[in-house]
Amino acid sequence: MFEHILENVRDKSPLIHCITNYVTVNDCANILLACGASPIMADDPAEAEHITQISSGLTINIGTLNASTIPSMLASGKRANEKGIPAVLDPVGAGASPLRTQTAERLMRDIKFSVIRANISEIKALALSAGGARGVDADKADAVTEQNLQESVAFAKDFAKRCGCVAAVTGRIDIVADAKTAFVIRNGHEMMSRITGSGCQLSALTAAFAAANPQEPLRAAAAAVCAMGLCGQKAFERMGAADGNASYRTYLIDAVFNLTPQQLQQGADYEIR
Amino acid sequence: MFEHILENVRDKSPLIHCITNYVTVNDCANILLACGASPIMADDPAEAEHITQISSGLTINIGTLNASTIPSMLASGKRANEKGIPAVLDPVGAGASPLRTQTAERLMRDIKFSVIRANISEIKALALSAGGARGVDADKADAVTEQNLQESVAFAKDFAKRCGCVAAVTGRIDIVADAKTAFVIRNGHEMMSRITGSGCQLSALTAAFAAANPQEPLRAAAAAVCAMGLCGQKAFERMGAADGNASYRTYLIDAVFNLTPQQLQQGADYEIR
Amino acid sequence: MFEHILENVRDKSPLIHCITNYVTVNDCANILLACGASPIMADDPAEAEHITQISSGLTINIGTLNASTIPSMLASGKRANEKGIPAVLDPVGAGASPLRTQTAERLMRDIKFSVIRANISEIKALALSAGGARGVDADKADAVTEQNLQESVAFAKDFAKRCGCVAAVTGRIDIVADAKTAFVIRNGHEMMSRITGSGCQLSALTAAFAAANPQEPLRAAAAAVCAMGLCGQKAFERMGAADGNASYRTYLIDAVFNLTPQQLQQGADYEIR
Repeated sequence: MFEHILENVRDKSPLIHCITNYVTVNDCANILLACGASPIMADDPAEAEHITQISSGLTINIGTLNASTIPSMLASGKRANEKGIPAVLDPVGAGASPLRTQTAERLMRDIKFSVIRANISEIKALALSAGGARGVDADKADAVTEQNLQESVAFAKDFAKRCGCVAAVTGRIDIVADAKTAFVIRNGHEMMSRITGSGCQLSALTAAFAAANPQEPLRAAAAAVCAMGLCGQKAFERMGAADGNASYRTYLIDAVFNLTPQQLQQGADYEIR
Repeated sequence: MFEHILENVRDKSPLIHCITNYVTVNDCANILLACGASPIMADDPAEAEHITQISSGLTINIGTLNASTIPSMLASGKRANEKGIPAVLDPVGAGASPLRTQTAERLMRDIKFSVIRANISEIKALALSAGGARGVDADKADAVTEQNLQESVAFAKDFAKRCGCVAAVTGRIDIVADAKTAFVIRNGHEMMSRITGSGCQLSALTAAFAAANPQEPLRAAAAAVCAMGLCGQKAFERMGAADGNASYRTYLIDAVFNLTPQQLQQGADYEIR
Repeated sequence: MFEHILENVRDKSPLIHCITNYVTVNDCANILLACGASPIMADDPAEAEHITQISSGLTINIGTLNASTIPSMLASGKRANEKGIPAVLDPVGAGASPLRTQTAERLMRDIKFSVIRANISEIKALALSAGGARGVDADKADAVTEQNLQESVAFAKDFAKRCGCVAAVTGRIDIVADAKTAFVIRNGHEMMSRITGSGCQLSALTAAFAAANPQEPLRAAAAAVCAMGLCGQKAFERMGAADGNASYRTYLIDAVFNLTPQQLQQGADYEIR
């Protein structure tokens, strides 16, 4: 089911325009190169739209949000919509400040996103226009668990329906849903939360997968989430006694570099609901 | 003496708001995660104060200083003071340009810092309002040595007294002092000066240690300096023949990830003056 | 021929002022430290010129170009010219947007660069004021090959002559030329194109080599290109089965750290045309 998704990324090598935070931008660029895509970062209002024009996909990430970049996000998002290329939103820290929440809301109002990739706190902040996010990590009270899975899936589908996009809600259990279908994904490893930017990297990866598979955004997003989680597992297996989160960061991107379509197909751990 | 300091960081997992430079920001985020804390980076004036409000500690670092971020630094610092959470200043490159020196001076005037962490050139630039810093590295002529240790300790205590904070002056020999007591620390390794940002990382670490131990800023800062230095030693021991400063950078953060309170207790190499 | 070039970098440890993009800035800082130089990053108009004043070399890189930084680039470039220290331009993405192309053109008009380091698409965009760059990667149609080498060398010499600088045109085959002499260099490895920023890093390295060897910019630039390519080969040789582009990134900087003048002398693979 996911084999051809990754094959398409490797074959087409889509150019992905990233408007993203300065904390994890290097990792986002390197994970795009690892998966076979090509990154281009540009956020000045004087060129954002031009860069989107030459790209095959766009990811907008509001970490370290700078107010002067919001016009670039809007212009690039609209251009992506006009051009018909996928746009992915990562509303980092939505709920943590009014600036983040309101900017995410405005972006969602003015741009049609193919995929919104976020943790559950951020998605809830956007869904409920209510606070509660603790920094950029998911609040534990909000976590998707086996116990609340049924309602979490319904919530994700409803969010996806109202936004007209694919919702990729990631955490210990991931849910990737459109209005009708949800992938419940159990790949991943808790070490992923001990490095900065695994979420940002996943959003960039999702943009590459969606750009190379524009006809199937749901499956592309689910494949990206499975790929990232599977690589998170592989990276953990590689850790030695002296390794910590810095080595893990390296191993994670290395794992994406070495992931084959067959390994993704076999290692993807999901059910459809 | 330092065991409980690190235990508290691991137990409380403080959220640390970082307003910092774009060169070493990823390392600062990952070292915070390595020690058990949680990072959040935000520097837009429209949200800086809100982010400080949800945090347990603040670090302000003036590397790659952007004039438009100064209001964020001031607003976040004041909010940290009102909230009673520790604020750490890293005056990167003070003395290297009027903008850096004057900004550091203004921050020190308007904000009460718990700890100022800097190299000796930067501290002297601030103390004497005189130049002499060579880039962001300490000028050799200024270095703390066994020969000038007595007067260096007196200088650090005096600086701490005048600023009403803990002064963490780092270099080959580190001095962490308040008005009355100084820790002279001999942990560390010269490889730490061959990577960018070991100082920035230490400042972030210091903010985490101070945030988790708000009643003892002197001991928290000394523990952070010992921890960083000890990890610098461990990282060096791990180096193989083909390794260079890039591997060392990884090993340093890995070492923080794996450092136990007991190892810190046993490995801390300090005397009190 | 190149031995003394690297020896001078190690002996003089030049301070290099970098005005560069936020994607690869950490790698640029660490590769400067790896080669024996010292980095300082500063881009605010209020201090850029002051930082250039205390430096021995300058590199201007227009990746993630921000319009507000252009005055800093111009001021620092002019100051470098007045001071007589080498300035290197990396016109990242010239041809990809009017902002990038026009900014590169303006910088070239107002500043005398010692070296312009770019891929062939970017150089052509600047030479022809014509588009065609695909993101920040070289367009395959433009690549320097054994077939078009003769005319590529002539093109590089002509570009160098018209700009009054050394042109370092890098790709599978590199050409480093002034108006009269060209080094055709066959070091390097294709893995270098699978990490972000190998070009940016090379530009920073070139600035360090030129700063430590101000009398011979052509040879300094050729040595930097050989050194980077040779390290790219060494980094590849070090890769194990689980390694990918993230490990490669680390190994590349490590290789620069460990490169000896003798190894550079012996491993440099060039011919002079």
